[in-house]
Amino acid sequence: MLRVGVNGYGTIGKRVADAVRAQPDMEVVGVAKTRPNFEAEQAIEKGFPLYAAVEDRVDQFDEAGVELAGMVEELVEESDVVVDACPSGIGEQNAEMYAEYDTPALYQGGESADFVDTSFNARSNFSDANGADHVRVVSCNTTGLSRLVAPLREEYGIEKVRTTLVRRGGDPAQTGRGPINDIVPNPVTLPSHHGPDVNTIFPDLDIDTLGLKVPATLMHMHSVNVTLESDPDADEVRDLLEGESRLFVIPEHFDIDGAGKLKEYAQDVGRPRGDIWENCVWGESITMEGDDLYLFQAIHQESDVVPENVDAIRAVTNAADAEESIETTNEALGMGI
Amino acid sequence: MLRVGVNGYGTIGKRVADAVRAQPDMEVVGVAKTRPNFEAEQAIEKGFPLYAAVEDRVDQFDEAGVELAGMVEELVEESDVVVDACPSGIGEQNAEMYAEYDTPALYQGGESADFVDTSFNARSNFSDANGADHVRVVSCNTTGLSRLVAPLREEYGIEKVRTTLVRRGGDPAQTGRGPINDIVPNPVTLPSHHGPDVNTIFPDLDIDTLGLKVPATLMHMHSVNVTLESDPDADEVRDLLEGESRLFVIPEHFDIDGAGKLKEYAQDVGRPRGDIWENCVWGESITMEGDDLYLFQAIHQESDVVPENVDAIRAVTNAADAEESIETTNEALGMGI
Repeated sequence: MLRVGVNGYGTIGKRVADAVRAQPDMEVVGVAKTRPNFEAEQAIEKGFPLYAAVEDRVDQFDEAGVELAGMVEELVEESDVVVDACPSGIGEQNAEMYAEYDTPALYQGGESADFVDTSFNARSNFSDANGADHVRVVSCNTTGLSRLVAPLREEYGIEKVRTTLVRRGGDPAQTGRGPINDIVPNPVTLPSHHGPDVNTIFPDLDIDTLGLKVPATLMHMHSVNVTLESDPDADEVRDLLEGESRLFVIPEHFDIDGAGKLKEYAQDVGRPRGDIWENCVWGESITMEGDDLYLFQAIHQESDVVPENVDAIRAVTNAADAEESIETTNEALGMGI
Repeated sequence: MLRVGVNGYGTIGKRVADAVRAQPDMEVVGVAKTRPNFEAEQAIEKGFPLYAAVEDRVDQFDEAGVELAGMVEELVEESDVVVDACPSGIGEQNAEMYAEYDTPALYQGGESADFVDTSFNARSNFSDANGADHVRVVSCNTTGLSRLVAPLREEYGIEKVRTTLVRRGGDPAQTGRGPINDIVPNPVTLPSHHGPDVNTIFPDLDIDTLGLKVPATLMHMHSVNVTLESDPDADEVRDLLEGESRLFVIPEHFDIDGAGKLKEYAQDVGRPRGDIWENCVWGESITMEGDDLYLFQAIHQESDVVPENVDAIRAVTNAADAEESIETTNEALGMGI
C-alpha cells in the first residue's frame, strides 16, 4: 500500500484524500491543515489523522478542542508521497521540507512550473513523472484542455488551438470574490496563462488563450477552436471524444443546458460533493467548419484534477503505467457517467 | 426636415426618438406604443405625440389617462420614414402597413433578413440602403462586429473571423431573464446566428461565431480572433481602430476592467441613460500572434444601434452620403469619449 499524506485540506486536498482512500493500492497517512475550521473537524470525523501545518497555530487547534496527531513534518516523514494542496505559492515554500525528508511531492496548478521536475496530466505525459521528486499537477483548466488536446493531436494532428475560457468568478464557498453582474476580461492582456501552461504538457503546441471572469460559481466554460491538420467530420470527432474515459460527451436527450443542470445530474447520480471529474463536452456543439473544430466544454474547477493527483501518485512511485493507473483510478472513483 | 415616426417605444425606440430629435435635419412626428406604461408617460412628458399601436388597446390608454394623438396608421402616413422598434417578429408583420402608406421603414436586428431590401451598417454598406423601402439595421452584436470588420478588411484583408460572444443574459430591466449563476452555451449548436448575420453585411466573409449567456446585464463581451491576410504589428492595428469614430479604444490609464466601470464612465461624462454607442475595445487586449489578431470588445446592447438607425434614415431618403451622415450623427449625439 502506498502511504499518502495530504498537506492542505481545503477544496482540492479534501477531495484528493477521499479519492486516495478509495483506491485499492493506497492509504491516507494523514492530512495537514493550518486552521481548525469545519474542514479540520470533518477530517477527524472521517478518521484522517490531522496534523498542524504551522507550528505557531497549534494553540488554535487546542483552543478549539480539535485533536492533532502531530506536526506536518511527521506526516511528511511517514508518507511515501505527499500531495501538497496548499494555496498557490505555499507549495513552492514547502518543497524544501519534502526534499529534507526525501518524500516525493505533488503540487497543484497554482504553483510555478519552474521549480518542479515536470508538470503532469495523466492522459498526456504520465511517464514524464516516473521517479520524479517534484511534480506539478496542472490546473483545472489546463487539465481540461490537455485531456482534449491529447486525443485530437494523436488522431488528426493540431495546427493551432484558440480558446476563450469563460471562467467562474469564484467557487461556491468563496464569498469574497466577484464579479457581480459583469463580464471581465481577465487578464485583459494576451495570452492568458492557460496557453503557456498547456505548453508545459505539450511544449510544441501552438495555442492562444483568452480569459474572462463572469458572475458564476459552478464550473468554467471553454469555447474551444482547434484547427486540425486533417478534416474529419464532426461525428468522427465525437466518436473519438466519446472513447476517452475522462471526457463526458453530454447526450442531447439529457437536456443539460449549462453548469447548473450538470451539477444537478452529478448529485442525482450520487457523486460525492456533486463532483464532476470529467470534462463535460456538449455533443451538439461539436462542429467542423473545414479543418476548424469547435466545441463547448464545462470544467468543474473543484474536482477535475482529483483523479490526476491520484494517477500522479502512481507515476512518481512507478506503481503502474498510465493505462493501468487511469483504469484503476476511474474504477475506484466510479467514473463514467 | 426629415419627418420621422417611431413605432415601438421601448429600449431601442425611445433612444432612437431622442437621437432623431437631436439631429439638425430631422424631427420626430410621433411615437407609437401598445401599452400606457412608464415609457408612454415619458413620451408625452418629452413632448412626443403618442400614437396607439393596437386598436383594441386604446381603452387602456384612456383608462390610464394617457392622451393619444391617434392610431399608428396616422403616424405612418405623416412620416417620411418610420423606424420600427417593435419586439422581434412584429416588424415583419408591420411591413404591409408601411408599404400601404408608401413610407420607407427601418427594422431592427431581431427581424428576419429575408423580407427586407438590405441589412444595414453605416460604416460598412451605407449606400446599399439608398432609396430602399425596407431596411434592417442589424443587431447590437452584428453592428459591433461589422464596425470592427470593416476597417480591418479594408486595411489588411481578412482570412477568417472566429468570435465567442459572451452575452449578457438580459437587459437591466428584463427581470424575467436568466441565467442566474450559470454559463450557458446559447445556442449550444454552431454557428450562433451572429456569423450568418454578419454575412448579411459582408456576404463573402468567412466567419464562425459561438454564443454564450451569463448572469450579467450591462453589456455583451466579444472575444475576437481575426486571422488577417497580412501581419501588421499590434500598435498599427490599434492606431487603425483608434481612427474609427465608433470604436472607443479604452486607454490603459482609465483603469476600466469591465462593463460596470464602462457604464460608470458613460454616466460620468453625461451620456443619456449612461448609453455607450461605440464599441469599447480594450487597448491592452489588442494582440497579434503571427497573422492572428485578438482583442476584447464590449458592446452596449441597448444603444449601439441607435446612431445606425439615424444614419439609415438618411440612407433611405438619400439625404446624405455615409461620411456626411456619420459625421452629422456623431456630432449631434456628442460621440467621441
